[in-house]
Amino acid sequence: MLHEVKVFAPASVGNAIVGFDMMGLALSRPGDEIVARRSERPGLHITAITGDEGKLPYDPEKNTAGLAASSLLKHLDKTGLGIELEIHKCMPFGSGLGSSAASAVGGAFAVNVLLGSPLSKRELLPFAMQGEQLASGGYHADNVAPSLLGGIILIRSNRDLDVLSLPVPTELYAAVVYPEVEILTKTARGILKTEVPLKQHVVQSGYLGGFMAGLFCSDYDLIGRSLRDVIIEPQRACMIPHFYEVQQAALSAGALGCSISGAGPSMVALCKGDAIAAQVGAAMQQIFTQAGIPNELFLSAVNAEGAIAL
Amino acid sequence: MLHEVKVFAPASVGNAIVGFDMMGLALSRPGDEIVARRSERPGLHITAITGDEGKLPYDPEKNTAGLAASSLLKHLDKTGLGIELEIHKCMPFGSGLGSSAASAVGGAFAVNVLLGSPLSKRELLPFAMQGEQLASGGYHADNVAPSLLGGIILIRSNRDLDVLSLPVPTELYAAVVYPEVEILTKTARGILKTEVPLKQHVVQSGYLGGFMAGLFCSDYDLIGRSLRDVIIEPQRACMIPHFYEVQQAALSAGALGCSISGAGPSMVALCKGDAIAAQVGAAMQQIFTQAGIPNELFLSAVNAEGAIAL
Repeated sequence: MLHEVKVFAPASVGNAIVGFDMMGLALSRPGDEIVARRSERPGLHITAITGDEGKLPYDPEKNTAGLAASSLLKHLDKTGLGIELEIHKCMPFGSGLGSSAASAVGGAFAVNVLLGSPLSKRELLPFAMQGEQLASGGYHADNVAPSLLGGIILIRSNRDLDVLSLPVPTELYAAVVYPEVEILTKTARGILKTEVPLKQHVVQSGYLGGFMAGLFCSDYDLIGRSLRDVIIEPQRACMIPHFYEVQQAALSAGALGCSISGAGPSMVALCKGDAIAAQVGAAMQQIFTQAGIPNELFLSAVNAEGAIAL
Repeated sequence: MLHEVKVFAPASVGNAIVGFDMMGLALSRPGDEIVARRSERPGLHITAITGDEGKLPYDPEKNTAGLAASSLLKHLDKTGLGIELEIHKCMPFGSGLGSSAASAVGGAFAVNVLLGSPLSKRELLPFAMQGEQLASGGYHADNVAPSLLGGIILIRSNRDLDVLSLPVPTELYAAVVYPEVEILTKTARGILKTEVPLKQHVVQSGYLGGFMAGLFCSDYDLIGRSLRDVIIEPQRACMIPHFYEVQQAALSAGALGCSISGAGPSMVALCKGDAIAAQVGAAMQQIFTQAGIPNELFLSAVNAEGAIAL
């Protein structure tokens, strides 16, 4: 019987540029670390939270990681079990990198591992989503599923929680730049029009299809022609200072595509190869830095593993 | 030098249920036959049209097949060449089976073959689309591209004419039933709302993605879970009498999915295997027949070849 486990749940890029609310991809870094250990005191207790600047609640029912863990324990009929959780946030909040999803995944995954993995990773999805819902206000799998399962995830049906792992071309790298401007997911959702012109729906469907075919065929040129967002990007770009300059800098430096990560303000560029990704990331950072906006770069292959025990 | 050629251009299923205006698939039958032959008389002339009940014009600039052929001849700088076209319509008009697209493809393809195939099939696409535009009023590749190239076609970009051939699972069959009620494509377009709820866009994107992954993985179950249309079908179903009964009959008989072919009134069911397709087709016909609506069934594998010389 395990006494203590430590897990890592990665950041993720919701929407993956072309698939609003129904696609996402996992990054190798940053991510959250969650410790779960058995304790004498019955019930689930959060005993430490670091890296959150005091923002996160210790009440498990009000904490993303805590709620995910407690939902799982209820399902397993183990609510009386004494378990302590430590949450170590190693990524920024409200960054568009799936911070709350990573915590939710980490909470459910850590407890599952501690208990000898009674459920498969896929079976943990609904519990992680309950945790994530607390933070984002929506029941969406586009960050939770990639953080949990890794890779590039397609959500065929959010209602049925039918999520598919898409093939990941080996040279696909992400350059993610987080500019330190605050956007809450709820705000970013609020500015979206509730209707989409039918013509834009058709155009975006073509891009989504092209991106998927590009993934299945490892066709980087096709991926590049398809990594566009005509629906969400034009509505949210205004929330990110210098958005179009950063995008242009990324494309000029060789990115296959560049747009908003999740609800922003982070921007993601997908690239062929780590060398190009490094150049692209530097070019993106330069624009923000010149404008006096503190920013952070994360270079990463697409993370094939998702959440792991450390 | 060829003196005369006869070609076949197949019917097609626009939208392929999940991909409005950006996907289509080719059927093996029905289709149009077009004859092109050299003649002493300079210029392009349509010398015979059969199967059209006298509806189609003989003026090449006003005839879908003629305009496609003449656009190609202009491009090749061969407008002075004496060419006669015969158009044999072997499929119903206004049926939702891409009748005008088949004629347009046949016209361009026949002339190209007659001239020793100076252009590749893919290069014929813009000329066939000019012909089709005459009939449908829109510049769309979702019928023209499958009729020309065969298979299941994804239109990544209609503007760039970037069309992709998707993999076709070997056991994928179509049962298409044409009920003899008239719907003009222009009318069917007119009833569509110009806006789509964002939530429906997300749901439909999931189905499109699921269908594509199903094609790439030959996963019939996934194809079945994905062959749904929450955007166009609810708006157009009212144009087809007994639509929902026919759809239910198809699904009960084992279809993977069933909806409107193109702009209707034909209905298409995709099935695993020809035996199930035959059962499904019979079940669909029965509903129309019981309602006193004359109808015709076309059973077909997905046509991998597209237009061919006979």
